[in-house]
Amino acid sequence: MHGDSSPLFTDLYQWTMAAAYWKSGKAKQRACFEMFFRECPFGGEYAIMAGLDRVKEILDHFRLDDQDREFLEGLPGFSSALLREIQKQMNLEGVCVRAIPEGSPIFPREPLLQVEGPLFKVQLLESALLNAVNFASLCATYACRIRQVAGERQLVEFGLRRAQGPNGAMTASRASYVGGFDGTSNILAAQKWNIPCYGTMAHSFVQSFTHLQPEDLSWNNTDLRSFLSDDLRPGHRGELAAFIQFAKSQPESCLLLVDTYDTLGSGVPNAIRVFKMLRHFGYSPRGIRLDSGDLVYQSVEARKMMNEAGFSDALIFASNDLSESIISSLQQQGAQINSYGVGTQLVTCMEQPALGGVYKLVEIDGQARLKISEQTNKISIPGKKEIYRLMGKDGTLLLDLLQLSGEPAPQAGQNLTAYHPFDPLKRVQISPAQVRPLLATVFEDNQWIYPLDLEQARERCATEVQALRADIRRRDFPTPYKVSLSEKLKKKFDQCLAEEAPFRHLA
Amino acid sequence: MHGDSSPLFTDLYQWTMAAAYWKSGKAKQRACFEMFFRECPFGGEYAIMAGLDRVKEILDHFRLDDQDREFLEGLPGFSSALLREIQKQMNLEGVCVRAIPEGSPIFPREPLLQVEGPLFKVQLLESALLNAVNFASLCATYACRIRQVAGERQLVEFGLRRAQGPNGAMTASRASYVGGFDGTSNILAAQKWNIPCYGTMAHSFVQSFTHLQPEDLSWNNTDLRSFLSDDLRPGHRGELAAFIQFAKSQPESCLLLVDTYDTLGSGVPNAIRVFKMLRHFGYSPRGIRLDSGDLVYQSVEARKMMNEAGFSDALIFASNDLSESIISSLQQQGAQINSYGVGTQLVTCMEQPALGGVYKLVEIDGQARLKISEQTNKISIPGKKEIYRLMGKDGTLLLDLLQLSGEPAPQAGQNLTAYHPFDPLKRVQISPAQVRPLLATVFEDNQWIYPLDLEQARERCATEVQALRADIRRRDFPTPYKVSLSEKLKKKFDQCLAEEAPFRHLA
Repeated sequence: MHGDSSPLFTDLYQWTMAAAYWKSGKAKQRACFEMFFRECPFGGEYAIMAGLDRVKEILDHFRLDDQDREFLEGLPGFSSALLREIQKQMNLEGVCVRAIPEGSPIFPREPLLQVEGPLFKVQLLESALLNAVNFASLCATYACRIRQVAGERQLVEFGLRRAQGPNGAMTASRASYVGGFDGTSNILAAQKWNIPCYGTMAHSFVQSFTHLQPEDLSWNNTDLRSFLSDDLRPGHRGELAAFIQFAKSQPESCLLLVDTYDTLGSGVPNAIRVFKMLRHFGYSPRGIRLDSGDLVYQSVEARKMMNEAGFSDALIFASNDLSESIISSLQQQGAQINSYGVGTQLVTCMEQPALGGVYKLVEIDGQARLKISEQTNKISIPGKKEIYRLMGKDGTLLLDLLQLSGEPAPQAGQNLTAYHPFDPLKRVQISPAQVRPLLATVFEDNQWIYPLDLEQARERCATEVQALRADIRRRDFPTPYKVSLSEKLKKKFDQCLAEEAPFRHLA
Repeated sequence: MHGDSSPLFTDLYQWTMAAAYWKSGKAKQRACFEMFFRECPFGGEYAIMAGLDRVKEILDHFRLDDQDREFLEGLPGFSSALLREIQKQMNLEGVCVRAIPEGSPIFPREPLLQVEGPLFKVQLLESALLNAVNFASLCATYACRIRQVAGERQLVEFGLRRAQGPNGAMTASRASYVGGFDGTSNILAAQKWNIPCYGTMAHSFVQSFTHLQPEDLSWNNTDLRSFLSDDLRPGHRGELAAFIQFAKSQPESCLLLVDTYDTLGSGVPNAIRVFKMLRHFGYSPRGIRLDSGDLVYQSVEARKMMNEAGFSDALIFASNDLSESIISSLQQQGAQINSYGVGTQLVTCMEQPALGGVYKLVEIDGQARLKISEQTNKISIPGKKEIYRLMGKDGTLLLDLLQLSGEPAPQAGQNLTAYHPFDPLKRVQISPAQVRPLLATVFEDNQWIYPLDLEQARERCATEVQALRADIRRRDFPTPYKVSLSEKLKKKFDQCLAEEAPFRHLA
């Protein structure tokens, strides 16, 4: 048993097909599959690559133990002899995996993963690889979009409780960091990937204090009552007790949740009292958290109250079902918020909870294959490919060029023609100032060789998204980025279509 | 390291609060938290309980190992001495967990989980328990809703590739089985929970055969060409080869994917050829799978073609981004579909990808607590509770009655008054024919004591959802089910509100 990385973490039909490949003598034909998506999520025109950590885990566990083999033997259509044969050859000999590096902007129809090797092996990898890349890339994309609207403000992911299972939460913590978040509330993710971890207090903490007791009123032998007499509104006494005790426990990073009873009438006045106490003892309070109500009005009023009390450095942290569009609206309305906590909407990618990435056979035994569909944009582009990212002098991304593997790479400064995959009227001539091959080999010769550097991925995302033209990046009605074909690939595509597309018979 | 069940799989603030409880001497106060949700998902008026398997895992791993303790020591605000103290007491001594059994219909504001014990322990459990129950119950609910529209038709979950992480997929497989699905494509889930597993073939299998070769044309020393001459449309030769080889590999459960090139012009005719071959050798073909295009038109036409060829027993399996509403529409339009495969829409619960379950402190040291909110329906109901499900003579569910723990249970045949939690005008008198306490103790005295019987949970769901009034179950404009308070609980609630609700100061 390898848990979720077991080769049984897949759809049954992968094994059914693997068995059929064996029986028909095709199991070891050299096949190339490519993973791609057809449409960018969230109405945008870019996405962000992520999920390679999990791709590595899947590859690391590609072997069939006896218990798993015996389970398969109990399913209809599998013979023990065949499964034993497959078990013997259940390794990644001959498999090569290439991928677009994590944090890169990615676009429709370009291969995010390219998996080449014996047909039965690369077929068996399909479902788990899709599971690995689909959600992680989706979530990194949504995080990056929030980063675009939030500017320099701090962004913290804290959706663990609403995520779709524990890995949903873990994947979201990691992917949102790639996409530009500053940290997470999820300690396990922080531990596993060295992501900054943030936390404050919940309402239950405040509620658990019912009134102010004598022991709440002293600290380090100092009577605290002098900090409590002021002309602010009186506030809930249990809340004040909770704040005092929290401040005593966390004097160096005291962030107080102020909306348990009445944000401006109780929470903020009580927070200011406790901030004065902290200041007396030489600590700088971190600030307050708003978690309900009108975040614009409350943040503006709370900012004023804290400024008047001399705490203009204290931060305002806001949460409460925030999304890209809500944050964008808060910013436009002039909310005085320094830091956003984003939960459910981010970790479930509520606006579009799945990326439709697919994994298609593009070549077998050197022969290009494509998948026909009645919908033109669902047709897959045949042949094993290379991707080149063509850039202008200032580093602006111009287009991604797909070529057939083996074609000479485009050269900086040289003119070339690039074709739209489907529309014969759309073709461009381009002379790129810079050319960068996009696919990196991540696994080869039975070894993972790609450095999974999370900080680098995060930086890559920040840099390359900025290198997209603003009209491609914008939220409303963005312009599509060009993913074009070389002349040779375009010809191969047209030829395959001519050969494979059916003639309909109209009665 | 306990992986996803580690006590670090939580939000940082739980640990921050735990530390503050210790420092303020409150850590061992006896607290009771209840998990509930405020609104049913998918516009419905019921949900289905699930996720207790994962609750058990979390409880099983509630201890802090040295490595985890050291990681916490590195975060701001945690002293090594305190963490060592907590580590010593990091066990479930004194903790009792009660839950509504899996598969039960559940309703807003009733406690799905009730967790009682020393304050710091039950606080630390919050995030992971919410993660466990929120998504599983959401997904079981969506599956149950699909079961309602699909009637007796076979339903198979196969969303692994689009699920939000591997646990997202695993949780969805299990939860959708609870909700009434017949099985899953996910082999690991089938292995782990003994769920029926289904699978067919993918387009890549069909694509991997480019033409018909001599070895495709014989089986068991029989020349197959006689099955291939007919007056059906000719069809793609590679597809035919793929079908023949698949049938040879899986003669007893041969289900063929017919939309790779042209469903009615190639796929169905080729499938019929291969079915004739199977029939000759004494096998009954299982049927065909449609995965694109107009499922109503294609299924009706394919049904006719198969019937004419004498395969009226062959099933039609349909997939392609199916949802509750699409299946409902297909049924209404008379699609000839025997079996639905549901993927992305089910495993991500795309229509509403998160259940807003919360975990609130309801009692501490015997004192009832509530959480005030500016939105009335967000106020939590104070006090540790019992839930009684009141039923009519025929077993119809009448209402769920919340009482304070310790009140005498309502008796069958006796009259009682039940109050709406918020609306003083709404109160009912009721004389139930049957009364059933709903919360079961699942963990007590350091032991898990609840049998996690998946088949029983599935049966419970089927039975109890049928026992809901049809107007509560229906898709459009359903009637809310009553969750009411006993007189005593209503009084306690009103009293807490009077004590805790703030008086606003209008300038």
